[in-house]
Amino acid sequence: MNQIDHIIDNALAEDIHTGDITTLSVLPRPRKMRGRLVAKEPMVLAGIAVAQRVFARLDVTVSFEPLFCDGERLQKGDVIARMEGNAASLLQGERVSLNLLQRMCGIATQTAAFVQELEGTGARVVDTRKTTPGLRVLEKYAVRVGGGTNHRTGLYDGVLIKENHIAAAGGIIEAVRAARAYIPHTLKIEVETENLEDVALALEAGADIIMLDNMGLEEMTEAVQLIGKRALVEASGGVNLRTIRAIAETGVDIISVGALTHSVRATDISMLMEEI
Amino acid sequence: MNQIDHIIDNALAEDIHTGDITTLSVLPRPRKMRGRLVAKEPMVLAGIAVAQRVFARLDVTVSFEPLFCDGERLQKGDVIARMEGNAASLLQGERVSLNLLQRMCGIATQTAAFVQELEGTGARVVDTRKTTPGLRVLEKYAVRVGGGTNHRTGLYDGVLIKENHIAAAGGIIEAVRAARAYIPHTLKIEVETENLEDVALALEAGADIIMLDNMGLEEMTEAVQLIGKRALVEASGGVNLRTIRAIAETGVDIISVGALTHSVRATDISMLMEEI
Amino acid sequence: MNQIDHIIDNALAEDIHTGDITTLSVLPRPRKMRGRLVAKEPMVLAGIAVAQRVFARLDVTVSFEPLFCDGERLQKGDVIARMEGNAASLLQGERVSLNLLQRMCGIATQTAAFVQELEGTGARVVDTRKTTPGLRVLEKYAVRVGGGTNHRTGLYDGVLIKENHIAAAGGIIEAVRAARAYIPHTLKIEVETENLEDVALALEAGADIIMLDNMGLEEMTEAVQLIGKRALVEASGGVNLRTIRAIAETGVDIISVGALTHSVRATDISMLMEEI
Amino acid sequence: MNQIDHIIDNALAEDIHTGDITTLSVLPRPRKMRGRLVAKEPMVLAGIAVAQRVFARLDVTVSFEPLFCDGERLQKGDVIARMEGNAASLLQGERVSLNLLQRMCGIATQTAAFVQELEGTGARVVDTRKTTPGLRVLEKYAVRVGGGTNHRTGLYDGVLIKENHIAAAGGIIEAVRAARAYIPHTLKIEVETENLEDVALALEAGADIIMLDNMGLEEMTEAVQLIGKRALVEASGGVNLRTIRAIAETGVDIISVGALTHSVRATDISMLMEEI
Amino acid sequence: MNQIDHIIDNALAEDIHTGDITTLSVLPRPRKMRGRLVAKEPMVLAGIAVAQRVFARLDVTVSFEPLFCDGERLQKGDVIARMEGNAASLLQGERVSLNLLQRMCGIATQTAAFVQELEGTGARVVDTRKTTPGLRVLEKYAVRVGGGTNHRTGLYDGVLIKENHIAAAGGIIEAVRAARAYIPHTLKIEVETENLEDVALALEAGADIIMLDNMGLEEMTEAVQLIGKRALVEASGGVNLRTIRAIAETGVDIISVGALTHSVRATDISMLMEEI
Amino acid sequence: MNQIDHIIDNALAEDIHTGDITTLSVLPRPRKMRGRLVAKEPMVLAGIAVAQRVFARLDVTVSFEPLFCDGERLQKGDVIARMEGNAASLLQGERVSLNLLQRMCGIATQTAAFVQELEGTGARVVDTRKTTPGLRVLEKYAVRVGGGTNHRTGLYDGVLIKENHIAAAGGIIEAVRAARAYIPHTLKIEVETENLEDVALALEAGADIIMLDNMGLEEMTEAVQLIGKRALVEASGGVNLRTIRAIAETGVDIISVGALTHSVRATDISMLMEEI
Repeated sequence: MNQIDHIIDNALAEDIHTGDITTLSVLPRPRKMRGRLVAKEPMVLAGIAVAQRVFARLDVTVSFEPLFCDGERLQKGDVIARMEGNAASLLQGERVSLNLLQRMCGIATQTAAFVQELEGTGARVVDTRKTTPGLRVLEKYAVRVGGGTNHRTGLYDGVLIKENHIAAAGGIIEAVRAARAYIPHTLKIEVETENLEDVALALEAGADIIMLDNMGLEEMTEAVQLIGKRALVEASGGVNLRTIRAIAETGVDIISVGALTHSVRATDISMLMEEI
Repeated sequence: MNQIDHIIDNALAEDIHTGDITTLSVLPRPRKMRGRLVAKEPMVLAGIAVAQRVFARLDVTVSFEPLFCDGERLQKGDVIARMEGNAASLLQGERVSLNLLQRMCGIATQTAAFVQELEGTGARVVDTRKTTPGLRVLEKYAVRVGGGTNHRTGLYDGVLIKENHIAAAGGIIEAVRAARAYIPHTLKIEVETENLEDVALALEAGADIIMLDNMGLEEMTEAVQLIGKRALVEASGGVNLRTIRAIAETGVDIISVGALTHSVRATDISMLMEEI
Repeated sequence: MNQIDHIIDNALAEDIHTGDITTLSVLPRPRKMRGRLVAKEPMVLAGIAVAQRVFARLDVTVSFEPLFCDGERLQKGDVIARMEGNAASLLQGERVSLNLLQRMCGIATQTAAFVQELEGTGARVVDTRKTTPGLRVLEKYAVRVGGGTNHRTGLYDGVLIKENHIAAAGGIIEAVRAARAYIPHTLKIEVETENLEDVALALEAGADIIMLDNMGLEEMTEAVQLIGKRALVEASGGVNLRTIRAIAETGVDIISVGALTHSVRATDISMLMEEI
Repeated sequence: MNQIDHIIDNALAEDIHTGDITTLSVLPRPRKMRGRLVAKEPMVLAGIAVAQRVFARLDVTVSFEPLFCDGERLQKGDVIARMEGNAASLLQGERVSLNLLQRMCGIATQTAAFVQELEGTGARVVDTRKTTPGLRVLEKYAVRVGGGTNHRTGLYDGVLIKENHIAAAGGIIEAVRAARAYIPHTLKIEVETENLEDVALALEAGADIIMLDNMGLEEMTEAVQLIGKRALVEASGGVNLRTIRAIAETGVDIISVGALTHSVRATDISMLMEEI
Repeated sequence: MNQIDHIIDNALAEDIHTGDITTLSVLPRPRKMRGRLVAKEPMVLAGIAVAQRVFARLDVTVSFEPLFCDGERLQKGDVIARMEGNAASLLQGERVSLNLLQRMCGIATQTAAFVQELEGTGARVVDTRKTTPGLRVLEKYAVRVGGGTNHRTGLYDGVLIKENHIAAAGGIIEAVRAARAYIPHTLKIEVETENLEDVALALEAGADIIMLDNMGLEEMTEAVQLIGKRALVEASGGVNLRTIRAIAETGVDIISVGALTHSVRATDISMLMEEI
Repeated sequence: MNQIDHIIDNALAEDIHTGDITTLSVLPRPRKMRGRLVAKEPMVLAGIAVAQRVFARLDVTVSFEPLFCDGERLQKGDVIARMEGNAASLLQGERVSLNLLQRMCGIATQTAAFVQELEGTGARVVDTRKTTPGLRVLEKYAVRVGGGTNHRTGLYDGVLIKENHIAAAGGIIEAVRAARAYIPHTLKIEVETENLEDVALALEAGADIIMLDNMGLEEMTEAVQLIGKRALVEASGGVNLRTIRAIAETGVDIISVGALTHSVRATDISMLMEEI
């Protein structure tokens, strides 16, 4: 929770800094208002607790009542939450709260679209490290809300051996061995492969996960067969809503999609306020 | 620069945290490599100094030579920059550097598309406060690179009197008067208006800028005529690439577009590395 | 509020650091006391909420009842506030609370003296960036409490084109044009002028505010006439309580006074404590 | 040094925040300038390394050559330092550098005036905890430069037993005993006394330092004789340039003066810049 | 208290970082549990408020009832505290709470063993600066709980003139004089001596404390007699539980022991949890 | 590296705070000295780069030449590193540098002793989360230097399902399933078991790692056979230098030892300085 408070406080400081001069000058005295967050289009809700927390960090006396839970599908016009409190606090928290919420709903909604494409296949959609700097913890959460799962959080909690690592180590087998000797026994080792020879070597090296990087559908199918459940198989590269189902049908276990977080359309949510 | 270093250090800590375990285990000894940043599609470059700074914060011995300047249009295949240094540093900075650069180029490219639509009209495109929490300073910079200009940075450096402020103050004239008495004489006052009566009151109140919020084209045209250059006129709401030119042709001075920063497609840039 | 909490926490850490060893050793057990803040000389009150907040940051169980509001004039002997709580908390917060309060009252009192000199003229007193490093937000607040208004908060929320900028840009007109193209449309542009030719150029350039820097009374009068309400006029340099009225009578709109914040006499306030 | 860098960085962020928009827009390209810091009145120099450090934190390529050392007396017109570097860096560091330097020189100059009054007596002037929140380390340094010495830095590195502590402990002897049992053996114990009976008790308790709080000259003289060099004697309360010599002549060892730091007139220093 | 909160928050962030994934996945819904802290061996309790504070920082709804006070001797099996609250909070705070508590109890228990050896002698045991980086304030507290007292907290609140300082100053007398002129009058001066000539010089110089560094018992005895109560005498070097009593019997006032904090065995404490 | 700099800066601030008053007063002018770090007993070196970095953070002009590498065994009298620079910097960095280095060497030396006991068995020694709050990254590094490997870094990068998790989930199988659905596919799942029935369930659930918690040697042997290489086996509880070999001989893969980091004897290292 502290990481999220840090994000929120930072965002509020960025927006308010030395003071909301419009509200300080025009609304100098406390005044109660009511507000509603309203969905202006269909979406998957993600981040309602974050939206709520923005107001709590600003002013503990603001009440905020969520009417939906993360993961629920909203229709246009749905009232997502009601709040009540000092007008200045509502006005000052509005933008930061929406900026975070709209982005998180955008990610969950987009992820859900990918997940839906996979229905009936055994594959799962995972995110990547292509997240917005500073917001990774929220964005990875939104991916989970949308029905996806997460790849490693960062460079510190997962091993992904790429081409340059392999070249430096002198080969896939040497690279996997070096990693195994160093890392906690609680982590798996993933190897990025470009072709079937790489795949064979990764298998021989005892890789726990084999990434098929930018392979064609046929080559992926062969790779899946070659691996034969001896390692998890991850497809990566060129994945979008039109291509994902065919990729899943090659039999891969996991499909990673950078666009889940690097190219997000904020969903349309408004905050309406009224005097009490 | 310190704000930007803070963003970069935060992003690096988010990604690397206790250590890049793949590189630490597989590439334990220093090893020189070369890298290139390559555009994989046309775009407007923005943020090259930020991309460079990421590597400098990690390792001052990495050399980084930009081959294009912010604001230049890149074609697919253009090499944006060359770098050389310890492989571990290149591998560890790659993702953060790209995450920032691809987002900034996305914003600049999108802004440039809006600016192009306005050619020949007197209107300027401005951004909003709908930015990614924590990255506002970079995103507003990218808007300028793309040919747009900035609205206020936050709640602290500009006055924007909205409906709720007006209700609380007892009217537009009272609200503007209260703001004028409070704020530095170096700041202008903007009033959000919903209709022509509001516009007339804002003019009478001496507003420096009048925002026409979600008005139709005809009402906007009338408003512009009513104002008659006595205040800057800003159009807001429902602006996209298909509607912006018609809005500009009503004679407004400024058009604000939330999508410039709230819904960004990261441009496609790769970092290629090779042994020396 | 977070900026102010940051100032307070920093000040408390500076004073208490690893612990108030006198109180920890001599007063090891909780013990209730009452305290009063008493004005020892006439003054304008400013910062009572800050004084209160110091105790709240230390110990939420301290009660603090302000008996006057910011902006009120106090007489010698007035009890400004009453508080009650654990003796250790009162003793540990006393110095930081007074250091902040006495300084803020000093600024408000001094500002009020300048404002009084202007009675009946149309001019306002404004502060400058000559504030105590780290305390600007509090000091600018105290200026407002004393009846003054604020100049720009920093280099980021106002444009002030000085001699060196003009030289670099190649002239006043070029400098104003460059600034106008860059800055948010919500900000005004101020030009510092040394003589009437500068004033004429600044007018021609469309400056929103013209600063008359260190001009004599006669030259100021001429400048005011030349400008003829087409821009705000700010007088700067050599302003003190003996000179300010004559300056105002030249017709300038704004008079900036560095001494409001750079040379402050702390007002005399005591905290008296007694056992309950 | 890190504490000082923290003060400087904080002050620069306070002033520059998201950017010096005047310089960014009007002076977009690097341009070399020279600057001089010039004393506009006589003063004792204090803080030249701090002034220099401001520019180093902003831009390591600025050269800064001090022409005087801390502690030297400056005459009107003396050039304190020369600098050369990018115009933007000089313009952006100017105000913070001067705000710190002028305040520190003000403290040193004022302290030196007190010290001069004591010439030939054995007494020393010390400061108090009535410093500017956040700047204590710099202000206490400036007091030393002016020829004074420091009282405890904060509540953590010295024991000062006051009336309320005595009441809580049940008497001076009990309070001193409690402190002695708790504190490091490297610290002395000071007791605040209101009258000669207190003084006698403090002596009996073995206090290392006895503060005579707001006593008249005669009572102070008696106290000094009673103490007879068995403890250091500190006079406190109502000290100013007119009263300090008589106080010193009572034979006290130390005289503490809150005004050294709580009421400071910034000395007048300008930064002049010219093109190269 | 803020320093301690900083240590706790830092420790929690170190352990939990982006989230306790076991508890988040397996225990997603709130669930009440009870916990007990149980001593698994005899020890002196120190840090119970710190252990409690860990849970408060995580989750203010956790109740925590201490059953013993710092300084009490615990037997194997004693229940130190009871707590009740959300299972996730108990599980997430357990390790940090124990890591701090077990270390603090280890220090207090070890200190108490040294103190016991001194019974009947007039000597006190003090700690050194050989503490765990970042935890000094807690470790020095634990020493006091164990019956020891503290040496200076750091380099800033005590003077200890060592061999290299003496060499640089040109002699003990010069070094003490330089320190006396510089430091607050509230601090004592300690000189480290290697032999009786040093001791004689330190006495002549007016040192307040004389450290006998690594002297034999006989030489210490002579030094104590030479000093004759004119300064505090501190023994240092080669102190352990077998040697300390003999050292104390030489008549020294203070014996400093690095091992109190640099080599600590964590006492064995368990947290037992059960469903409600 | 930034985490380590943070630890170092924090430790230096803790020790030096407002200044090393002994050195500032006695050694006010720059003076070159040489220093040597000398091992006073046999040990495994760990942390030499950290010791060096302490001086670099204080003063970039200090030269520091390591004469041994981490992992090497030192004999009594070995000179570990030579340094040269300003005396004040050497004196101010000495204690922090040694506090970190002695602790890290203590951990590596102790780990190496455990590792040696395992020679010829296939088992590895791993650490736990029983580390010093704030220093985990350094302590886990020292364990690796000593020949051990690391367990998960914290609660965020590994799953360890304990008794309370199992009770809450309704059984081992349910708990493992819940974790698998939530966590990144790059992480393994470990289950803590108390007896052979638990082991059988963990196997059935597909646990990647099975921890045998406080089992006797016979039960462990049975468990290892039951598991039959289908999962990694970790022994935990009651491990010390006398018991570890017998535990390893049961055939477990991993043995975790809390004492590696929770009860550390600092190795004896001195810094000797001399004038140049």
